Amino acid sequence: MPAAELPFTADEYERRLGLVRAAMAQAGLDALFVEDPANMAWLTGYDGWSFYVHQGLVVTPGHDPVWWGRRMDANGARRTSWLGEDSIRPYDDGYVQSDERHPMQHLAGLLSDLGLGRGCIGVEMENYYFSAKAYVTLRDSLPHADLQDATGLINWQRVQKSDQEIALMRKAARISEKIVTGAVARARPGLAKNELVAEIWRDALIGVDGVWGDYPAIVPMCPSGADASAPHLTWNGAPLEAGQCTFFELAGVCRRYHVPLCRTVWLGHPPDEVRRAEEALVEGLDAGIEAARAGNRAGDVARALGDMLKRAGIERAARCGYSIGLAYPPDWGERTVSLRPEDDTILRPGMTFHFMPGLWMDGWGLEMTESILIRPEGPAETFCNLPRKLFVKP
Amino acid sequence: MPAAELPFTADEYERRLGLVRAAMAQAGLDALFVEDPANMAWLTGYDGWSFYVHQGLVVTPGHDPVWWGRRMDANGARRTSWLGEDSIRPYDDGYVQSDERHPMQHLAGLLSDLGLGRGCIGVEMENYYFSAKAYVTLRDSLPHADLQDATGLINWQRVQKSDQEIALMRKAARISEKIVTGAVARARPGLAKNELVAEIWRDALIGVDGVWGDYPAIVPMCPSGADASAPHLTWNGAPLEAGQCTFFELAGVCRRYHVPLCRTVWLGHPPDEVRRAEEALVEGLDAGIEAARAGNRAGDVARALGDMLKRAGIERAARCGYSIGLAYPPDWGERTVSLRPEDDTILRPGMTFHFMPGLWMDGWGLEMTESILIRPEGPAETFCNLPRKLFVKP
Repeated sequence: MPAAELPFTADEYERRLGLVRAAMAQAGLDALFVEDPANMAWLTGYDGWSFYVHQGLVVTPGHDPVWWGRRMDANGARRTSWLGEDSIRPYDDGYVQSDERHPMQHLAGLLSDLGLGRGCIGVEMENYYFSAKAYVTLRDSLPHADLQDATGLINWQRVQKSDQEIALMRKAARISEKIVTGAVARARPGLAKNELVAEIWRDALIGVDGVWGDYPAIVPMCPSGADASAPHLTWNGAPLEAGQCTFFELAGVCRRYHVPLCRTVWLGHPPDEVRRAEEALVEGLDAGIEAARAGNRAGDVARALGDMLKRAGIERAARCGYSIGLAYPPDWGERTVSLRPEDDTILRPGMTFHFMPGLWMDGWGLEMTESILIRPEGPAETFCNLPRKLFVKP
Repeated sequence: MPAAELPFTADEYERRLGLVRAAMAQAGLDALFVEDPANMAWLTGYDGWSFYVHQGLVVTPGHDPVWWGRRMDANGARRTSWLGEDSIRPYDDGYVQSDERHPMQHLAGLLSDLGLGRGCIGVEMENYYFSAKAYVTLRDSLPHADLQDATGLINWQRVQKSDQEIALMRKAARISEKIVTGAVARARPGLAKNELVAEIWRDALIGVDGVWGDYPAIVPMCPSGADASAPHLTWNGAPLEAGQCTFFELAGVCRRYHVPLCRTVWLGHPPDEVRRAEEALVEGLDAGIEAARAGNRAGDVARALGDMLKRAGIERAARCGYSIGLAYPPDWGERTVSLRPEDDTILRPGMTFHFMPGLWMDGWGLEMTESILIRPEGPAETFCNLPRKLFVKP
């Protein structure tokens, strides 16, 4: 009973599985246990908010991936993935959040059944959902297996997007434009922040022109004034105030594919310091996009931006972007390429980044960002089409 | 520069820290490293969507907890927690999602600076945010320390809610009632699911009577028809159809405190099988609430429910509830007490649970749940006041 409405063709899933198996062979792995929900979805289509309990895929060279998870979620695997019934292997509810037993004990049994008890098995050591306890339990339950760190093995196969993926991201970008435009238009002194975010969520989910909006891996960020000096504060019930900036860090999402987009609004007249930062940021974005070409390196984008900011006297220590695509909470980045000087990854066509040079200063913040696509020739394409400027509402 | 708008009084944070230090002493810990964002917020007020990078608190017997996290999030700690400047210890951005270095190397340095290099340090081994790699790196970077599993040490201190916490949950419950009522009222054949969820989000964030809505740790679940046989599928753009059930699994949230509430709507005339399940579920909820008294055990609630369901021929294997309160994605449960027959936890006044006997059957699902508060005397109080029935819209 494979799922009816997969976001991609069978060929596309076949292509992905081929890439992963080739990487596994190169790493000398007999199997790969995949707990990252984005990696699970990318390989099989599986989509559900079930990652708060242990679940995963067992990928081997010779068989379809095996979905392993909580019994009540097995129907979700049947409804959303292309896997057949013999690839769905649930565990009983008694393993869930118990002090007495751990789901990894069950997984160890499954791996042994699959003939992997003495195999070399890759696990995603640096992942939100493969806990320290999961690792230790699996290791102790499979004393003859060789657990290898395979963090990012799949993530790196996801870096260059297929045409089908880019098509979804273009749809997501229409939602991104809509929600940022709507947020800027609605911002006014006296409007409670939670009411503004309520309208952003509504816009995001309604979507555009028949493209329904999926949930973002990070909730809308839109801090104001001194809160905008901190990049990751969520909303409260305080009203927007005249004389303050508010930045919007949002993403349109289509079938779990994210296109983040940030803009900042100033209610009143921004001080000269802010105007100078705006100018430097616009020039830095231009320079970075110009440098974001196939054959250049990730670090080149960061350096191009940094040069423009330095000219304006702005020292910015944080990375200025990261690879994007399919994502689940808590992060919409792919955790592979970072746009920072030390990252020597060669840019290739189909790579997609959130070019994100946020400025979080004392008492204010300025975010103006672009999601970009590396093209075969020329500078990167921006997914969205929105003026690159500080939106001022006097 | 401690935060201005903490959700709780200084006394309340003092009380919590006292509980944790006592539990640490009993466990023989010199320090506790806390990566769970709910535990961080519960102890210090810290609130931000920064848990997608490593961060945490170092709790020791003699000093204020130390916030440790990414440099760009230090301002967030200043804005939202009661900690003083000397308790905020950030790490540089180069540690973020890097193949070359890991934040735990930095944490090891901090722990050594604090004189804990040879100490007995508790870590939350079973936690979404303390990864396998984090554990291995910290262990290898502190070869003379003794890392002990302290999973749940803080969570168990959170189980009995204070009056201040219960007051927040009562506010959240008003939002829960509003959003479930609104969802049931809007449901009609032809309405696209994403549009329905858009209105639920909007209602949730706008809140009620001056209580602004915070984001839930789990997005709204409202699968229909055969999708309702799987508990954790999120929405899509398909229209609601006549003759189908749709369940709503939602939570109102006030300052990160959750009160989940589920109801189900049937568009058309439910079959007899569903009506019988409804009746059994209503009786089971009544019986469970009656059993949910101080002095009884968690398992008593599960057994009281199970008896009523069995009478109607329904065998239900999954747990039927869990402790609730302060939560961050991906789970709104506290991961301590589970309502299941084998859980012998003695119920005490102030404990709060989502009593959640969802039925996920072949081709349909029925969720009718209550968030409950254990009282000093008598059966539990339900936080919400909404008819316990299947909502039928012919």
